[in-house]
Amino acid sequence: MKIRKPMLASLIALTVGLTAGGQAWSQDTLKDVMKKRGLTEKDILAAAKTYTPTGGRDEYLAFSSGGQSGQVIVYGVPSMRILKYIGVFTPEPWQGYGFDDESKEVLAQGRIEGKDIVYGDTHHPAFSETKGDYNGKYLFINDKANPRIAVIDLKDFETKQIVVNPLFRSEHGGAFVTPNTEYVMEATQYAHPYKGSGFVPLSDFNEKYRGGLTYWKFNMEKGKIEPENSFTFELPPYSQDLSDAGKGPTYGWGFTNSFCSERYVGGIEKGRPPFEAGCSSKDTDFMHLTNWKKASELVKAGKIGKKVNGMTLISMKEAVANNLLYLIPEPKSPHGVDVVPTGDKIVVSGKLDSHTWVYDWKKIQKVMKNKKFEGKDPYGIPIIALKDALDKSVAVGLGPLHTQFDSKKCVAYTSIYVDSMITKWDYCKGKVLDQLPIHYNVGHLVAMEGDSVSPDGKYLIALNKLAIDRFNPVGPLHPQNHQLIDISGDKMQLLYDMPVPLGEPHYVVAIKADKLKPEIRYRSGWNSRKDERSPWKTRAGREKIERTCDANGKCTVNVYGTAIRSHLTPEIIEVTEGDTVSIHVTNLERAEDEVHGYAMYGHNVQLSIEPGKTASTTFVADKAGVYPYYCTEFCSALHLEMQGYLLVQPKGYKAKSGGLKAGTNYTEADYKKQVKTNIDTQAVINQVVGFITSHNYKDFPTVVALVEDATDQLGFAKEAKAKAEAAAAKKDWNNAMLWANQWWQYQVKTADLGLRAKTYLEEHGAKKVK
Amino acid sequence: MKIRKPMLASLIALTVGLTAGGQAWSQDTLKDVMKKRGLTEKDILAAAKTYTPTGGRDEYLAFSSGGQSGQVIVYGVPSMRILKYIGVFTPEPWQGYGFDDESKEVLAQGRIEGKDIVYGDTHHPAFSETKGDYNGKYLFINDKANPRIAVIDLKDFETKQIVVNPLFRSEHGGAFVTPNTEYVMEATQYAHPYKGSGFVPLSDFNEKYRGGLTYWKFNMEKGKIEPENSFTFELPPYSQDLSDAGKGPTYGWGFTNSFCSERYVGGIEKGRPPFEAGCSSKDTDFMHLTNWKKASELVKAGKIGKKVNGMTLISMKEAVANNLLYLIPEPKSPHGVDVVPTGDKIVVSGKLDSHTWVYDWKKIQKVMKNKKFEGKDPYGIPIIALKDALDKSVAVGLGPLHTQFDSKKCVAYTSIYVDSMITKWDYCKGKVLDQLPIHYNVGHLVAMEGDSVSPDGKYLIALNKLAIDRFNPVGPLHPQNHQLIDISGDKMQLLYDMPVPLGEPHYVVAIKADKLKPEIRYRSGWNSRKDERSPWKTRAGREKIERTCDANGKCTVNVYGTAIRSHLTPEIIEVTEGDTVSIHVTNLERAEDEVHGYAMYGHNVQLSIEPGKTASTTFVADKAGVYPYYCTEFCSALHLEMQGYLLVQPKGYKAKSGGLKAGTNYTEADYKKQVKTNIDTQAVINQVVGFITSHNYKDFPTVVALVEDATDQLGFAKEAKAKAEAAAAKKDWNNAMLWANQWWQYQVKTADLGLRAKTYLEEHGAKKVK
Repeated sequence: MKIRKPMLASLIALTVGLTAGGQAWSQDTLKDVMKKRGLTEKDILAAAKTYTPTGGRDEYLAFSSGGQSGQVIVYGVPSMRILKYIGVFTPEPWQGYGFDDESKEVLAQGRIEGKDIVYGDTHHPAFSETKGDYNGKYLFINDKANPRIAVIDLKDFETKQIVVNPLFRSEHGGAFVTPNTEYVMEATQYAHPYKGSGFVPLSDFNEKYRGGLTYWKFNMEKGKIEPENSFTFELPPYSQDLSDAGKGPTYGWGFTNSFCSERYVGGIEKGRPPFEAGCSSKDTDFMHLTNWKKASELVKAGKIGKKVNGMTLISMKEAVANNLLYLIPEPKSPHGVDVVPTGDKIVVSGKLDSHTWVYDWKKIQKVMKNKKFEGKDPYGIPIIALKDALDKSVAVGLGPLHTQFDSKKCVAYTSIYVDSMITKWDYCKGKVLDQLPIHYNVGHLVAMEGDSVSPDGKYLIALNKLAIDRFNPVGPLHPQNHQLIDISGDKMQLLYDMPVPLGEPHYVVAIKADKLKPEIRYRSGWNSRKDERSPWKTRAGREKIERTCDANGKCTVNVYGTAIRSHLTPEIIEVTEGDTVSIHVTNLERAEDEVHGYAMYGHNVQLSIEPGKTASTTFVADKAGVYPYYCTEFCSALHLEMQGYLLVQPKGYKAKSGGLKAGTNYTEADYKKQVKTNIDTQAVINQVVGFITSHNYKDFPTVVALVEDATDQLGFAKEAKAKAEAAAAKKDWNNAMLWANQWWQYQVKTADLGLRAKTYLEEHGAKKVK
Repeated sequence: MKIRKPMLASLIALTVGLTAGGQAWSQDTLKDVMKKRGLTEKDILAAAKTYTPTGGRDEYLAFSSGGQSGQVIVYGVPSMRILKYIGVFTPEPWQGYGFDDESKEVLAQGRIEGKDIVYGDTHHPAFSETKGDYNGKYLFINDKANPRIAVIDLKDFETKQIVVNPLFRSEHGGAFVTPNTEYVMEATQYAHPYKGSGFVPLSDFNEKYRGGLTYWKFNMEKGKIEPENSFTFELPPYSQDLSDAGKGPTYGWGFTNSFCSERYVGGIEKGRPPFEAGCSSKDTDFMHLTNWKKASELVKAGKIGKKVNGMTLISMKEAVANNLLYLIPEPKSPHGVDVVPTGDKIVVSGKLDSHTWVYDWKKIQKVMKNKKFEGKDPYGIPIIALKDALDKSVAVGLGPLHTQFDSKKCVAYTSIYVDSMITKWDYCKGKVLDQLPIHYNVGHLVAMEGDSVSPDGKYLIALNKLAIDRFNPVGPLHPQNHQLIDISGDKMQLLYDMPVPLGEPHYVVAIKADKLKPEIRYRSGWNSRKDERSPWKTRAGREKIERTCDANGKCTVNVYGTAIRSHLTPEIIEVTEGDTVSIHVTNLERAEDEVHGYAMYGHNVQLSIEPGKTASTTFVADKAGVYPYYCTEFCSALHLEMQGYLLVQPKGYKAKSGGLKAGTNYTEADYKKQVKTNIDTQAVINQVVGFITSHNYKDFPTVVALVEDATDQLGFAKEAKAKAEAAAAKKDWNNAMLWANQWWQYQVKTADLGLRAKTYLEEHGAKKVK
């Protein structure tokens, strides 16, 4: 029996129209399926509101913190399908994050006292804003455990910067942005002596432990936080909690609440009542009001602030003296503070309470103006009396936490922890409008663009914790449960339960999908983390290996490599034991689905190299031996053959003569057979090309991209053909046959693209051009 | 204005029946929604087949490799909701994996030549089997980059063991199990000199580079791979690829295919044709047949094999001499090898071909018996002629890869890479039955229990790579796309596109959900990784801090701590600069949703402590200062107050006298007010208890668990009450008030549980008991 070259036959069959069938739909009826799966009509309506058929797009993208996973999670609304985990504070090898040299530099920015910190506890994502509306450019996220803020570029969904708070050792209330992203807010949580003050005993808690609120300056043009232009308010040792920036009439102000204004210091192990009792005993805590606008002007003018660890610190005394800082009592242990879209009211909920409290900015301003305070706190900060600031309180349910806003005027939604429900209420009329029971353990909630100046309404998501009973069990550590709710009508409707499979989200922000315009490839030879041309960029045919040694005999090897389907160049890298090896790989592809990877045995090498990107890995080749490497992304039919060897030779090794011996030799007949196949294949390609060019393919950008790519591949085929013919002319049948095979490989890639283009044209009603 | 204690009022309101309303469904009709969202009737049917309402369960659980993410991904079928990422080769802080000392020990088993390897390239998961059927006990997964196999216990979805292959430097064909999980198969991919042979130049490729196939012995009772009872077949330096174990008539044999039997060694950087050409030039490669059953007997009897690096290695010579190893040609560059459920046929697809090839075991056995081989390969292994082994070949489409099986007799499904479709075909009749176009770049596919002896049919999932056009764009690195297909009827029907947000899955296995019985909590004080009682277990009230110093003055602090909502014990830990600190935290909770976490500033400390678990973290307190720590899982209303301080004192530090000064002092009036609240709250609790006990709550296990938990909390309340009263007797109003508050905190927890139980009873139609 003879093995055919059957791919060719099949190629021909396809071009003459014998495409795959099997699209007939079965006899199932909706009624049968509902009965079988126990679905109600309500379920079907919910399914119809969320189900997104193949190729469909979501209306909103939600960006969720990943909690102690240290990542950000992106999912679509209303389909509730998770689209991406973005590496932020934790290394993640699929993305090469924390593996390639370029992203290691980003993570290194997050070092604390010289230590690599390999995770974060991300809590509150925030979009960059222009005039109080999301502009779709950047996302900020905080790290509660190791006070840091990261900047994610929404052009490519990559983390570009991490800044470490030079004063804080604990935070929670970040990231929140001011209406034009002038600043990103980050507040402490558990009071502590500022970094650099060394050890301070708890007996000095009231005097030397402090809270604080940093306003990180953001440069929108550069996409970077500027620590040198940022400043921090010194705050009392209360446990500051969440923040929100004012807008409209409150523009220029920030609002930060707190718990444990009791300043309790724990000690259950010594028989003292625990923190939970000591921090929740007073009837009220304090909302902090900070005037960042005036503060920034005064700092700029050099009138206040002094540099501590490189950060401009505004003392409480300075803040009070310049009317930058006030306190207002809040119901005990509040959690959320949320400024309404019009900016004139501030909503706070005490989590051990059953009301939302609405503060009125006009009233507050009046007190500030008249300086009629009810007193000062132990640190001299003026306290505005609750009665002088409050507009109303509304009974929303037991354990209210956070509030989001609707597109409808005065309509708000509050998550109710103990009662496990969402309360829809009117903050103008002080009236509850609707209540929807949800899965228990709700924390934050998010409405579409629900913390911007122009919320979109439509959907609300309840962020519930530890779903023990809503999904199939997966062991003692449970997923979280994000519940999608339709808020377009008068009554809220539960649509969908989405498990979160990794991480414990705290807050989510959701943006209209069409505000995002992510790039699909990088400019050739790009360092994506620095957003600039990589010095290690290489072009096809210019790959090289450079080895340089210093005076002490320490040697460094730089490999300027490339990846293109389906080979890595170089395929053999020879170095000497002890060399520091840096391998830089540029992805030469233009097609957006041609991501390549690069992994090597035993050296923690794993790169993700998207089209255009140059990614690098550096390691010490400390042990003589053979180290296979390969492409880790399934990029083509010959992906497994995309391989190579790092040969680490012992010091002083001298190669034997003789060179490489292949296991298989080819004859003139083999060469001729391959060439015949190639000629036949070219005829097939020509047929496909004929089909495409005889249609209005230029009207279809997807097809234009495929055709461009196919043209590239055919160009490569031509080069391989020339090499084959040159070898044949020298009767070097081995090389002739192999280059002829390589020529065919490029033809197959061309054909693959051509067929994909042809199918696309057929499926999208392309018209014949006359 | 006076702040009320409004929680109490609300508690009372709830108990008298003013529960949340808002359950009315809106006026939307299905037709309106379809029109608005552009859905067809076919879409609605697909939605109905996949949509799973709140609380619904999936019929199957799919376990997917995560590729270069180094993880395993678990999702439900047909809802296609991802339920969990399981940390395997890559540290993952949400799970505490690679952060707690216990899981660090598991990862340390995976060290290679002394190096921590911080990721893996997971490819092929496999369930443990009994008589060829999944038994739901364990999952195995391989690491292609750094040849290793991990064992995941399906009792708790945790990784329990990692074994490093002591010979291999590259693999791909793992993990595949024999029908009773006697062995787990792991085959090399890129040939190399075995570990320990040091540097071998490529010029010695044919003579000294080798492939191999390890049969890892598995002990089902212990849940552990036993390296000492495992063995490895030495194989030629072909690129071995996937494997499958025989069953039924082929029981005792393993099948492993290969590519690059050309033994090409690359060198594009030197002007040689690349690997992709050199490894795909011959018309055929080789399937390897290995008799593991006979081999294991011979090894046991000491007749073959010798220990190399602790692994029993069977040389090719020994294998051939004992009829343990044969080769059969396969169509060029095959990818999948799949034994049919009845075990009598083997299906192989050459990925540069358009056919599936069906081999017949009876024919193969005949050749073996008669020893009528067509020759030997260069390493002396007998080659069975293709014509003598083949049953039939079936034209299934361009670029066939992998095959899965239906519950229907003789029905198979093959993924077709170039044509981007799934072909359903009959391997008995050699007939194509149906073809379904799918999203491009398909790799593996999986049918429900589709590689077991009794496939379930019903659903098929196509694993497509790099979805550039099926979801909202998320930058140059795209999600993968797992497409769910209904195979219950004659024609396949596409149901759902699921993006994979992290990692690049290769293969998935899917098991009937009811075969899994995961545990919901650990026994108290449990080391989950070793599955034994932790020596660091602590009980409530027995927490302690032990500091011991060695002769050199090096000191170690062991903290025996606990976590329970809402406090960590101890809350203050004092150590001296330079101490090695080990903090061991036992989660005292019995409620399954009461996971606690433990994070600390600046020390890479992040634990996930599920109920019952004891988790530990060890670090050097190398810098004097104050380090806040806190619970990272949102576990209760007072979760944020679950905090503490590590105080690292400078060497020789002497505490000043005076002790802690609280920021707030309480009076007798405060105490009395709190006590009054507590008495009122108790009345409310009694009402709830009355409701529960007057109903048949014992018929509801969920409610029984809640009641047990509530009883625990009330017990704690009683203890706190006693402390409050004792302090009051001494007129210590501060402590009296705080303990009274703590007493109230426990009451609130009790009430929370009671209300949850009451709601559950109401929603589930509990009946009044007379």
